[in-house]
Amino acid sequence: MVNTVRFTIATTGQGDVRDITKEITTAVESAEFDDGLATVSVIGSTAAVTTIEFEPGAVADFDRLLERLAPRDAQYAHHERWGDDNGSSHVRAALLGSSITLPLSAAQLVLGTWQQVVVVECDTRSRDREIVVQLIGE
Amino acid sequence: MVNTVRFTIATTGQGDVRDITKEITTAVESAEFDDGLATVSVIGSTAAVTTIEFEPGAVADFDRLLERLAPRDAQYAHHERWGDDNGSSHVRAALLGSSITLPLSAAQLVLGTWQQVVVVECDTRSRDREIVVQLIGE
Amino acid sequence: MVNTVRFTIATTGQGDVRDITKEITTAVESAEFDDGLATVSVIGSTAAVTTIEFEPGAVADFDRLLERLAPRDAQYAHHERWGDDNGSSHVRAALLGSSITLPLSAAQLVLGTWQQVVVVECDTRSRDREIVVQLIGE
Repeated sequence: MVNTVRFTIATTGQGDVRDITKEITTAVESAEFDDGLATVSVIGSTAAVTTIEFEPGAVADFDRLLERLAPRDAQYAHHERWGDDNGSSHVRAALLGSSITLPLSAAQLVLGTWQQVVVVECDTRSRDREIVVQLIGE
Repeated sequence: MVNTVRFTIATTGQGDVRDITKEITTAVESAEFDDGLATVSVIGSTAAVTTIEFEPGAVADFDRLLERLAPRDAQYAHHERWGDDNGSSHVRAALLGSSITLPLSAAQLVLGTWQQVVVVECDTRSRDREIVVQLIGE
Repeated sequence: MVNTVRFTIATTGQGDVRDITKEITTAVESAEFDDGLATVSVIGSTAAVTTIEFEPGAVADFDRLLERLAPRDAQYAHHERWGDDNGSSHVRAALLGSSITLPLSAAQLVLGTWQQVVVVECDTRSRDREIVVQLIGE
């Protein structure tokens, strides 16, 4: 009824968007659920999960949007707290959200042909990101 | 335990926001679950699902916000890839997210009185949008 | 299999971000599920749920981002409809989303050490916010 798959990806820092669709579809296939839900969550407060057409142009456009909304080199109150430089990371991640939930139907993840599940690294440095895929179904 | 409802809506293109609350509550009623979750997902990378007070003013305000964040007529790297004109669509959809999950409680979708579930068409042309409502519960 | 916890918090209005992680972990502990999902939803169209590192700097940075994206004192078509002053609240809430879903694993909510679940009050006045935590699992 519930199946948990965890994996880690090494990201290069802010602007690194990683396609994890294959890892999720592999998890779905091994769970052998016909119907249910898949929640994909990245642990931590400076990364996000969403879907996008994973081609370099759209990914670069999305990164530019995030830079426009929350510029890396702007002033952030968070910097004064810890001496960090990743205030932009925290607000980007809070805006995007750390997890998504998608339907599983007919033993498949329900996604468009040009729609991939991605982890969006928002932190200013490289990170090892733990992803939790929680499958629930029958 | 799991019940899937699919339906299609024809949208008119960017700025078309469609109230699908009734379709979802109909799905909830026919599933006859007392308690559980409802995941509402639009298939594809240029549309989104969220909730809003569905009155023309708030909907127009939301469209204006999206246009300010990701202007339709700006330059997008995605355009150079496919000769498309919908770079704004991809980044808006990635920002908003393609699905939401809401509680089902006492055989009802848990929503506020002035809160509706909407599909936000982000593409620059009319589309037939397939919506998947995945209900899981008991 | 399904466990529902409801609670109310009194917010002070726009910019009030409230850490509800403890209420959710308490719900998780009393449900005694080993594995599953937790959906956290705030009822209404002028509040949102997300995760953030809950320290005053990051919270203030996030509020400033929202004010930049959707200024409180700008013109909104929603104001003309009801004589309201909370157009900024509606578009902020629709952008952020009213609910999140996180994995439950090994009887714990899956979150980072510096990652808290928060309700983001977007309305321009104080509100009593009803939060629904829907736990599903085994």
